[in-house]
Amino acid sequence: MKLLEDRIMRDAKIGEGDVLKVDSFLNHQIDVKFLCELGKEFHRLFADCGVNKILTIEASGIGIACLTAQYFGVPVVFAKKTKTNNIYSDVYTSTVESYTHKRSYEIVVSKEFLLPEDRVLIIDDFLAKGSAICALSDLIESAGAHTVGAGIVIEKSYQSGARLVRERGIRLESLARIESMSVSDGVKFVAE
Amino acid sequence: MKLLEDRIMRDAKIGEGDVLKVDSFLNHQIDVKFLCELGKEFHRLFADCGVNKILTIEASGIGIACLTAQYFGVPVVFAKKTKTNNIYSDVYTSTVESYTHKRSYEIVVSKEFLLPEDRVLIIDDFLAKGSAICALSDLIESAGAHTVGAGIVIEKSYQSGARLVRERGIRLESLARIESMSVSDGVKFVAE
Repeated sequence: MKLLEDRIMRDAKIGEGDVLKVDSFLNHQIDVKFLCELGKEFHRLFADCGVNKILTIEASGIGIACLTAQYFGVPVVFAKKTKTNNIYSDVYTSTVESYTHKRSYEIVVSKEFLLPEDRVLIIDDFLAKGSAICALSDLIESAGAHTVGAGIVIEKSYQSGARLVRERGIRLESLARIESMSVSDGVKFVAE
Repeated sequence: MKLLEDRIMRDAKIGEGDVLKVDSFLNHQIDVKFLCELGKEFHRLFADCGVNKILTIEASGIGIACLTAQYFGVPVVFAKKTKTNNIYSDVYTSTVESYTHKRSYEIVVSKEFLLPEDRVLIIDDFLAKGSAICALSDLIESAGAHTVGAGIVIEKSYQSGARLVRERGIRLESLARIESMSVSDGVKFVAE
């Protein structure tokens, strides 16, 4: 998606440890108008798939998930990273390995919000090694629901996540696909 | 706001430890269409205040903040609960006492996203003892920016937060104000 690639070229910064810093518009400050354009694109891609729920993971997935959901007219469910004492009922759980934060953590969704008849679209800001997307897909599978696909804002195509997600039979649509990035050479996108 | 009071009466559950469980529409599953109506109401209340930025706190504030921000045409900034290694530049910090989780934690915002000329509207899902709203207001003050007001979805008016926020000179607008709640008597709203 050219609009997004242009924005990444203009505003993203490359940091230590393979970090693409896009916190001026995506995951700290949120350019809501811009993210609405991304949401419309996700809707265009998945419009005829019978999506009735969007699943994401706190915290940085929530903004893009909510802004996308309004074009589908469906609710968002976000998986929580710790089991808090204001979730009463039973939950589905899965484990995410976070490479950015160098630790693993549990994610949970209340069973009442993922139902066998659900057709779920996963939305998230980044796909790198794929652990978060696979964990969300595990939650959907636990509920006996159907994963319609995964809509990702930025895919690091040089990492293993995209392949892992596709190997699970999940349709993957990433709005920007990064082939390589480095401080010296900048960001290169996968040619269409 | 009657629409919200009706929804609370219909779907909220009262739990142990003064918890109002609204995770079927507000802070786990998000009824996006419904939250857009709340966002329009926040816009009606603060439309002529020159708001140029909305500040909230992860995770459950992000959805309502983003859906509200589109009516103002402004970006959202969300304060992060821990200092992660992909925030590089200097940050403003403040401390929140969480009574639900019985601990305190730091929140941070990158200095580049709160500027002295900003006119900031704080948006959050709950106001109880007011610690989160006061901490967000501290961040805005640290930046030399102006707090236009605070828009809250559900205020527990029988707790001290509303008074604390108003004592700071912050205009407070809560869409539902709970006078009392208990398992036996249910939820009572403050009479208008």
